Amino acid sequence: MIQTETSPTAEFDRDVALTPLDGPDEPVRRFSGHLPGGWSVGGGINGGFLLAMLGTAVRETVPDRPHPVAVAATYVGASTEGPAEVTARIVRRGTLTTVAAELAQDGAARITALATFSDLAGLTDEVGTTAVAPVLPPPEDCVATSDGPEEFLRIAPLVQRFEMRLTPRSIGWALGQPSGTGVLEGWFRLRDREPDPLMLLLACDAMPPVTFDLGRPGWAPTVQLTTHVRAVPAPGWLAMRQSTRNLAGGFFEEDCEIWDSAGRLVAQARQLARVPR
Amino acid sequence: MIQTETSPTAEFDRDVALTPLDGPDEPVRRFSGHLPGGWSVGGGINGGFLLAMLGTAVRETVPDRPHPVAVAATYVGASTEGPAEVTARIVRRGTLTTVAAELAQDGAARITALATFSDLAGLTDEVGTTAVAPVLPPPEDCVATSDGPEEFLRIAPLVQRFEMRLTPRSIGWALGQPSGTGVLEGWFRLRDREPDPLMLLLACDAMPPVTFDLGRPGWAPTVQLTTHVRAVPAPGWLAMRQSTRNLAGGFFEEDCEIWDSAGRLVAQARQLARVPR
Repeated sequence: MIQTETSPTAEFDRDVALTPLDGPDEPVRRFSGHLPGGWSVGGGINGGFLLAMLGTAVRETVPDRPHPVAVAATYVGASTEGPAEVTARIVRRGTLTTVAAELAQDGAARITALATFSDLAGLTDEVGTTAVAPVLPPPEDCVATSDGPEEFLRIAPLVQRFEMRLTPRSIGWALGQPSGTGVLEGWFRLRDREPDPLMLLLACDAMPPVTFDLGRPGWAPTVQLTTHVRAVPAPGWLAMRQSTRNLAGGFFEEDCEIWDSAGRLVAQARQLARVPR
Repeated sequence: MIQTETSPTAEFDRDVALTPLDGPDEPVRRFSGHLPGGWSVGGGINGGFLLAMLGTAVRETVPDRPHPVAVAATYVGASTEGPAEVTARIVRRGTLTTVAAELAQDGAARITALATFSDLAGLTDEVGTTAVAPVLPPPEDCVATSDGPEEFLRIAPLVQRFEMRLTPRSIGWALGQPSGTGVLEGWFRLRDREPDPLMLLLACDAMPPVTFDLGRPGWAPTVQLTTHVRAVPAPGWLAMRQSTRNLAGGFFEEDCEIWDSAGRLVAQARQLARVPR
């Protein structure tokens, strides 16, 4: 059964949940959480999942600003399965409220972020988007990442957490024939609940690294990831397009666009990552 | 005379300079600076200049990591001419060192950032960039923004601080005939020194808002700006392309690419800004 938006019974919502360690009036709120091994990839916890956990702390800290608008995160160390502590400090309150949030394990920061939250339902209806949604074959004609090569599945338990269907031309890497264009396209959804703004923070880093499509398999550690969430997504599959245009000096930029089932560009994310060795 | 890189005699370098308020071993370094009115636009200080001032504080704090690699800034309040205090706290040291930096006036944060610095000279020589540099008419066939309409110059003393030449098709807004495509292209340099990585933080927010080209004049306040600096720029003019593909709900994303005279994509910046009213 697909639930509407946030659902306490959905796996993602259970896993990103946090327990407050103090009261709502502290200048720095503290929360405890647990990073489940099921969200790991290449030995570390997926960066999108971590971002969503930070977002959970921010939402708890400023409940009247429930939606991420711009979240800029720097990954300063690999996170692993186990307990985590998240802190959140309000930098500025307003229609746009900015919160500094950090996730630590064993007392060391793993991801630190500046998150601007607001109420996306209160925005104007104007849509002047000129970007064009990717034209994708229907999900049933695409390839589930959970059916990927055994070697890939072994290092990426993450892909069992959601449904991702890559287009046939985005899956060449699994057959040893990457397209070489630096583009991955496909569909994304959670099995047990509909998309919402928080879940888009997960989606924006859920695809395999675009370097797979350039014939460079392996883990591509994120240095910095900024996500803009531009609208509350409509229910249904999300269409995603991930690309790179500047691989140089051992780093690459990776752009991710997420379109909802109503054809709206609901999120844009860009990360700087290290080229796999 | 064009100086090589940072020059204490160049206007930009004099203006972003900071005075340390304490010793290098403090957990949070504090610096004082002055925001000159000459860098203002629409009543506030230009966001790129502010970013460069934060970058100056970071460079002073981690001198062995002299170059910005990824700087993510959230603009939480308008900065105005006058004194400013900048703080810098090291989050993680490494080949990539991350510093949390904040600029305040009158005790209130104006811009807060997470800055990752490194030594760009130490990167690999590999360049696999597929992005294509804009094809621009030579600077002498472009239009200097300092020759813009009087109304524009009155609200933008900023444009006297550098040489910017927009291509003829990027300047339609000045004649009441914006192209409507959401693209601005042109050349950029400082009069009295060559580009360097720190100066790219200025350049990435130096162009007029791309909304000018959509027939929406007026100030477009930056919410969030993330800049990747990918290489030490070669001397000479910088070629720039600024565009938007997602104007909706009262916000727009603005992408800025900066190419050096050797044809290298040396910086990519993306901001989320408010559509002018």
